[in-house]
This record gives sequence, structure tokens and C-alpha cells, in this order.
Amino acid sequence: MGAKYLAITGGVGGAKLALGLTHLEDSSALAFVVNTGDDFEHLGLHISPDIDTLTYTLADLSNPDTGWGRRGETWHFIETLRLLGGEAWFNLGDRDLALHALRTARLREGATLTAITRELTTRLGIAHSILPMTDAPVRTVVHTAAGALAFQHYFVRDRCEPAVTGFSFAGAADARMSSEVLGWLDDSALRGVIICPSNPFVSIDPVLAVPGLRERLRALPAPVVAVSPIVAGLALKGPTVKMMSELKVPQSAVAVAAHYADILDGFILDHADAALLPSFEGLDLAAIAAPTVMVTLADKIELARVTLDLIHRLNADKKAH
Amino acid sequence: MGAKYLAITGGVGGAKLALGLTHLEDSSALAFVVNTGDDFEHLGLHISPDIDTLTYTLADLSNPDTGWGRRGETWHFIETLRLLGGEAWFNLGDRDLALHALRTARLREGATLTAITRELTTRLGIAHSILPMTDAPVRTVVHTAAGALAFQHYFVRDRCEPAVTGFSFAGAADARMSSEVLGWLDDSALRGVIICPSNPFVSIDPVLAVPGLRERLRALPAPVVAVSPIVAGLALKGPTVKMMSELKVPQSAVAVAAHYADILDGFILDHADAALLPSFEGLDLAAIAAPTVMVTLADKIELARVTLDLIHRLNADKKAH
Repeated sequence: MGAKYLAITGGVGGAKLALGLTHLEDSSALAFVVNTGDDFEHLGLHISPDIDTLTYTLADLSNPDTGWGRRGETWHFIETLRLLGGEAWFNLGDRDLALHALRTARLREGATLTAITRELTTRLGIAHSILPMTDAPVRTVVHTAAGALAFQHYFVRDRCEPAVTGFSFAGAADARMSSEVLGWLDDSALRGVIICPSNPFVSIDPVLAVPGLRERLRALPAPVVAVSPIVAGLALKGPTVKMMSELKVPQSAVAVAAHYADILDGFILDHADAALLPSFEGLDLAAIAAPTVMVTLADKIELARVTLDLIHRLNADKKAH
Repeated sequence: MGAKYLAITGGVGGAKLALGLTHLEDSSALAFVVNTGDDFEHLGLHISPDIDTLTYTLADLSNPDTGWGRRGETWHFIETLRLLGGEAWFNLGDRDLALHALRTARLREGATLTAITRELTTRLGIAHSILPMTDAPVRTVVHTAAGALAFQHYFVRDRCEPAVTGFSFAGAADARMSSEVLGWLDDSALRGVIICPSNPFVSIDPVLAVPGLRERLRALPAPVVAVSPIVAGLALKGPTVKMMSELKVPQSAVAVAAHYADILDGFILDHADAALLPSFEGLDLAAIAAPTVMVTLADKIELARVTLDLIHRLNADKKAH
């Protein structure tokens, strides 16, 4: 049986590396565990932004300009909703809506989010498994100077403006990993876990908050490697750096690695940050510098290759000891 | 205080006369009580087809080709839903969806259908009150040789193909008229009630099934007049004649008048059916023939004028006695 890899991801940045990985490993060797902490119910619809971003990315339907939603989308629904006085702060494209409506209808029929995601991704021609981190409702709450906010209210409605003081993941204590996620984690052929370049606080931490997952990664014989979402002190997308500043965490790749220190065996930072490499010495992990800014498909595949190479090296080092 | 009129209507045919009436009587003098028996829940949305047809008609947004939905609509949502394997037998336009989504969200917040309809119609610039026959859920069930069918399954999904054996209105016994409908019915200025040319079985009967409404019409001092939805043995739209045939009722305007006999004081049949006028003599009502086929706006206003004139005549006759 061939080597298997599991990648943990949030939305945009993570989905880019995920796409690169699918070009190197087929669906029997690679699956994705995706953040559902920013899922929410809106206008009666169950919306799963990170699952959808990965779905549209792998189905080659994604919109490169926005980082969310579909290419060539139309907006007649949301424009009409706005005219009618409805809550129109969350943009929903006409085609995108179909995915939410179908997911919601199937959830109401009692299907799990894992099963529904499998159905929808299969329809869209995606072979790789996109696994929700859990089928239970976990909701990221952003604690701010202005009070606690549901994630999408903070992120979209309030445009990340309130200063962050912390995060919590409502429902996480009662969540369980699905049998599909457990199947991958417990597979003796698992040779590595990849933490994609997503926001550590609101994309990866919710996944790690599902009981048992962090412990399993800590105890895993296979290496866990992360790719930095921070390049030269800047987040390529989203509020990561703003959050780090508000949380009084140094705004650097080193702080990201430190954030995952208990589970991490390897870390890839951008070559622009190569000067930071000595700072990783205290963290007991293998840090390497590589081009992490993914613009073209070739960039994505190349970073995926670097990531898998680091995993191979760590596995080889372990055998050598 | 001026004379007031209340019109009871279903979808397409009724909405045409309703539009004509709004050109003759302003919103303080005229309101509409609308069938909600064909409302249904679909893909998590509360859809009110007859309210929407009247809304789009009065807002000058209606689609003259289909008789439902909006002009200049796009279909990206439903096309995508179909591609994803969802239930796509009920056509939902991208802009139309916004109305359903907003209604559904407001219902979930606890607003009444009456209040929501007021909000939405006001947003669309409609001055006249469009009043759901009740805020309670009443659902028309079509009994057929193939078993009992929810109305939209019979009407849209199964294209009215199963032979009808009867109808029932689930929930009607527990329904109450809203204070808005009662306000119009009990208004001492009410000078007439108009039953628009809609399907007697599935558009008007559900309204009359709301407890107290039929009794109130029967006891009303003001005249109740109906306009025939049947012209020369044919229904202008929809399955009325097919239903009459399956129910072994003569397929004529006379049978429609007889259907409402207990509440009716006047009846307008098409001039093409003028030869039938003697057949109305046993029905104890004033029957007149007039052009009832409404193609242009002028047709609609003219039929509205004929209808109001009949009401005026019946009121004058009563005073004279």
C-alpha cells in the first residue's frame, strides 16, 4: 500500500497548496480535513465557506479575483435581496446559492456534512476527499473589544475591523471526528500531515479544537509539517497579521511555528524570510525556506513538492536514527 | 367615508382583474384576499405562488409569457442545482429567489405572512394591501386516481396529469382569518366582494375554507360577484376545465356560478357564452355577459369597470327594494 498524506486547511491560501498537492498525489493517497468553524446559517442556508473554497478550487471553478465564490458568477439574487431590504452583507452568487441550498436541504433530510460534501464534490468531478473537520456544529467566536462576534459577522460584515482579544470555538467540546477523518489519521500508511498556509487562529485552530485531533497529531509517528501563511511579516490574504498584532504576538513566521510547536516536526517559511531560520533552532523542528507565494499553478505544485520532500526527508531521518 | 371593495383571488387570471381594479380604486378603497393553499416549502424556502403572482403583477414585474415569475429573469441558480443533482422540477429564477429567501427568513423570525407580504409589497412600490387568506398553514391536497398529492407536486411536478377525484385543504379547520382580512370584511363601508376569475377548486375554495369566511360572505349585506374563469367551455389558463371534466361537473360558466351559489349575488360570464344566460335563471343571481378575456391593460381595466358597475347596480337595486 502506498504512502498516504492528510492535509489540514482553511480557505484561500490553504486551498492553493491543496490544489498543488492533488497534482502530485491521487485520491487514494491524499485527503483534506477542512475547517468548518466559519460555517454559518444565513437566510436559512447552511454555508461552509472553507469547504466551498476548496471545492471550487479543486473543481477549477474558483474566482481568482475574490478568493471565494465562483468565476463568471452573476449576482441577481443578492441585488434583488438588497432592493427588498434583506440582509445583503454576505455576497451570495446565483450559482453559488445552488450549492448552499442543496447542502441545506440534505442536512435537513438528516445527511451528515461529510456525506453531503462527498456527494457535491463527486458531482463536480473532484476525486479527492474533502472532509469536514467534524459533522458537529462548531462555531468560531471572535472576541473583540466590541464584544463577542460570530465569525462571519467579524470577518465579512464588520470587515475584520474590531480589535481581536481572543477566539473560542463554540460546540468544539462536544464535537467528534468523523469516521472518515479517523480512518485517515489511524491509517498505518499515513506518512505525513500537512498544515496548509491558512490563518492559525481561525482556520487551523478550530480543526485542532476537535477533541482528540491535536492529541493524535502529537502522538503521530509520521511527521507533521506546516507552511507559513506569513511572508515578510505580511499575510498574503486575510487578517492573520492584524490579529497577531492585536494579540501582541510577533508578526512573523516564527510565531506561527511556535503556535503549533507541540505538534510540528517541520516548517516551511518563505525564502524572503530565510534570515529568520536561526530563530527556529529552539523549536525542535526542521525549518526550511522555499518560495511560498503561489500565483501560478506551477507555484502551487512546486510548493506541494517542497512540502512532500520535507516529509520524505523527515521520515528518512527518523528511519536513520 | 368612500365605498370599499374586497377582491378574492388566486394567481394568473385573478391577478389580471386585480390589476384592472387597482386602476379604478385606490388602496384605501380596495384590497385583495389571496389564496395561500398552494404555498409550499421547497429547498427550505417558503414559496407563496399566488401572492407572488399578484405581487409581481401589481409591481409591473410579471412575466406575461409564463404567467408566473419575473420578466427578464435569469436561471443560473436552478441550472446549477440541476447539475448538482438537486430537485429542480420547480423553476426558481435568480431574482425571484430573493423574495422567497427574505419571506422565509422573516417567517423564521416570527413575523406573520401578512406582515411580511406588506413589507415586501411596500418595498416593490405596491400601495394596495395583498392579504394572505390566513397566516396559518393551509395546504391544498389534490386527491387523484394516483393517490393524494401536495398541490405543487400535482400542478408543477406532475403537470396536472393525474385524474382528479377531489380536494382537501389541510390545516383549514384550524386556520383563522387575520385581523386585516376581518377588518375589511367587517367594515361598514364595504360595498362589494369580487371573486376574481381564478380556479374555483384550487384557488378560491381554499380561501372559502378558512373558517368563518364563507359564512361572512353569505351574510354580507353587500353583494358578492364572481367573474367566470371559463370562456366557451375552456379555461384561459390552468387545469380548471380538465378538473371539471374529471369531477363530472359540466364544463361551463354556469357550473362555476352554481359552485358559488350560496354566496353569490352577481356573475359575469364572457360574451361568447351569452347564450347561456337563460341557464342562470334558477340560481337567484344577476348574470351578465361581458368581454372577460384580458389581454391588454385596457381589457383588464374595462372588465374591472364592468364588475364594479354590476356591484353598483346590485347595491342600487337593493336600496330600491
